[in-house]
Amino acid sequence: MQNFKVNGDRLWKSLMDMAKIGATEKGGVCRLALTDVEKEARDLFVKWCEEAGCTVSVDAMGNIFGRRPGKNNDLAPVMTGSHIDSQPTGGKFDGIYGVLSGLEVIRSLNDMGLETERPIEVSAWTNEEGSRFAPAMTASGVFGGVFDLEYGLSRADADGKTIGEELERIGYAGDVACGGRDIAAFFEVHIEQGPILEAEEKTIGIVQGVQGMRWYDVEVTGMESHAGTTPMDRRKDAIVGAARMVDALDNLGNDNRPDARTTCGMFDISPGSRNVIPGHVSFSADIRHPDDDILVGLGEQFGEACRKIAADMKLELKFEEIWYSPPVNFAENCISAVEQAAAALGMPSRPIISGAGHDAVYISRVAPAGMIFIPCEDGVSHNEIEAASPEDVAAGCDVLLNAMVTCANDV
Amino acid sequence: MQNFKVNGDRLWKSLMDMAKIGATEKGGVCRLALTDVEKEARDLFVKWCEEAGCTVSVDAMGNIFGRRPGKNNDLAPVMTGSHIDSQPTGGKFDGIYGVLSGLEVIRSLNDMGLETERPIEVSAWTNEEGSRFAPAMTASGVFGGVFDLEYGLSRADADGKTIGEELERIGYAGDVACGGRDIAAFFEVHIEQGPILEAEEKTIGIVQGVQGMRWYDVEVTGMESHAGTTPMDRRKDAIVGAARMVDALDNLGNDNRPDARTTCGMFDISPGSRNVIPGHVSFSADIRHPDDDILVGLGEQFGEACRKIAADMKLELKFEEIWYSPPVNFAENCISAVEQAAAALGMPSRPIISGAGHDAVYISRVAPAGMIFIPCEDGVSHNEIEAASPEDVAAGCDVLLNAMVTCANDV
Repeated sequence: MQNFKVNGDRLWKSLMDMAKIGATEKGGVCRLALTDVEKEARDLFVKWCEEAGCTVSVDAMGNIFGRRPGKNNDLAPVMTGSHIDSQPTGGKFDGIYGVLSGLEVIRSLNDMGLETERPIEVSAWTNEEGSRFAPAMTASGVFGGVFDLEYGLSRADADGKTIGEELERIGYAGDVACGGRDIAAFFEVHIEQGPILEAEEKTIGIVQGVQGMRWYDVEVTGMESHAGTTPMDRRKDAIVGAARMVDALDNLGNDNRPDARTTCGMFDISPGSRNVIPGHVSFSADIRHPDDDILVGLGEQFGEACRKIAADMKLELKFEEIWYSPPVNFAENCISAVEQAAAALGMPSRPIISGAGHDAVYISRVAPAGMIFIPCEDGVSHNEIEAASPEDVAAGCDVLLNAMVTCANDV
Repeated sequence: MQNFKVNGDRLWKSLMDMAKIGATEKGGVCRLALTDVEKEARDLFVKWCEEAGCTVSVDAMGNIFGRRPGKNNDLAPVMTGSHIDSQPTGGKFDGIYGVLSGLEVIRSLNDMGLETERPIEVSAWTNEEGSRFAPAMTASGVFGGVFDLEYGLSRADADGKTIGEELERIGYAGDVACGGRDIAAFFEVHIEQGPILEAEEKTIGIVQGVQGMRWYDVEVTGMESHAGTTPMDRRKDAIVGAARMVDALDNLGNDNRPDARTTCGMFDISPGSRNVIPGHVSFSADIRHPDDDILVGLGEQFGEACRKIAADMKLELKFEEIWYSPPVNFAENCISAVEQAAAALGMPSRPIISGAGHDAVYISRVAPAGMIFIPCEDGVSHNEIEAASPEDVAAGCDVLLNAMVTCANDV
């Protein structure tokens, strides 16, 4: 098996140069989708692609594609990519690492003078974060057929400006159709955004898929009454009921380690006065698991636990599933290409499930897809202190290069 | 023993007439302290006192006293009273029932032509509710020596207007000193504001005292992280810790029935995003008990439970007692006068502890004091739907009349 290496120093320098665009005082970046700052980053990426000899095209959703020809340009390309936009207080790696790794793959192929059978493409997907325009992963979603183009272009920010208007304004409303073309394989390299690889001292996470997710809104209604005059046995205390439900939610996650995740992230009480027993609480529950059958079971068990607590305490309960995102299983050939590349390079690796959504999730609807994770410091992401080591950054790109070459020569 | 009766119909009519002043659409009253509406209610009360032959005086805190002479006017009076002000969405009974019951006692004594040894006084205390000016029970507090006059007059509302200014404006800045005079006994009749008497079908609550209260602020700090990528065993989930503390607080109250009360009324989480594990929670704890030693123990047990939960979950804990109000024991002779009056009238009664503060609490600092409770519908108070039956309203006033006459003739 081949054992190619990228130029890690060059990749690191490109990452650091790009991080100057939208740099924040705390060492992160603020590069919200389709702002002037993000346009500057897009322009730099396009310039670098052109300098690497790529043909650059932009589609109707502003997605950017840099293409390196193969021996047979009628074959579907092998593609990689991620996103240039960031959270308002984002880090230097989330998204842009996947974009610049794709560029580095092309630069390295150029250095080696290596011609692949299939063309190689690097892509940058518009508005992955969802911070400026909801929902997240808008443009990869349009490409993957999850959203239609009109929906994608009409998403508006808090000031009412739409993606379509902003693409026109910054000059990234492209003339190529979004989607509808063959891709032989799609890879995305990304920081883990979690603590597992670092804790287990693995350099490479071979991503098997993305866990499924179910979101619930729970409302607990008791009886608002005076903290001093209402005896314990005559209370209908909504916060005590809700507290027991949150405890049950956490126990459910712990009883189904290591793959389950259960989280209460929002919790509002009413009336919220120190000496009044709360009459009403609403809270959110986020339940995740890579296996859809188990995920369904976890949701049912949580509902059952809430109903029992409410009945025991004579509380009213409203329990509603408000969102469902099914688990994604990445393509066998992509997973296998990543696994073999890591093994050939002698890198410590482990299979891993992505806890978060990525552009590769929507691309997997229309092409075989896979992902490569590298460790990030303390598992921290969506934060200006997000960090990854130059060695791990290079390692992830090495795996990407070898997996892409394998697929690009598999004709 | 004597067995006098008031004119229940007249008392009820006075209550309903008074309830027109500041009446709300939902059947309650909005009569915030020292507003034009409250001045109108004060004026009506003063007019009724004068019509009943009382000498009316107003002190420096705007407290109103209607005095019916006794046989020996050098003796300290027996006094009753409560407050005219209400919560913004208050009911027709809270406070004003105690004031108009005092007036009805005097009217009934007039009807009977009964002359007591000591003078009888009915009082109305300024700003009991604390809704417009904090703290609550301001003017009875000044009378009882808990606050000094300057502090009382300088309390300001949300617009910066002080009690002193507003008393001048509505013409109730009196020329009599606030406090500093002898009172032989003080009684206050009030709706229970809780569910016990109604549930046990008792007409009269013989109030033994007011429970002590300790307030705590608890802060729990964990680690904010991603709901999808953070495995259960690597979380420091502040809301799960806080939920277990709220559960422990409630269990503590239930383990110490019937006298303990434990309540979490405020609960704030951060950052409050559906897919982020909360890094920080702050919540309030309100612990009450009539026995100070037990109250101290409950606070210590709660702190211990919080520390154990925080340690087990590797959470940081800040646990602070922010307020302490000691239990109040009412005077034996006042309690006994109420008990004997209820027994003589053949009314079902029970000893009861007040869960809330009242003007009688501060007056008890400078005079023997006692209270009489009557049931209120569903235990609801501080609410426009607050209700009490005409029969119970009359019964409470009957007990007040007999208890006051007993004390007023005890020379």
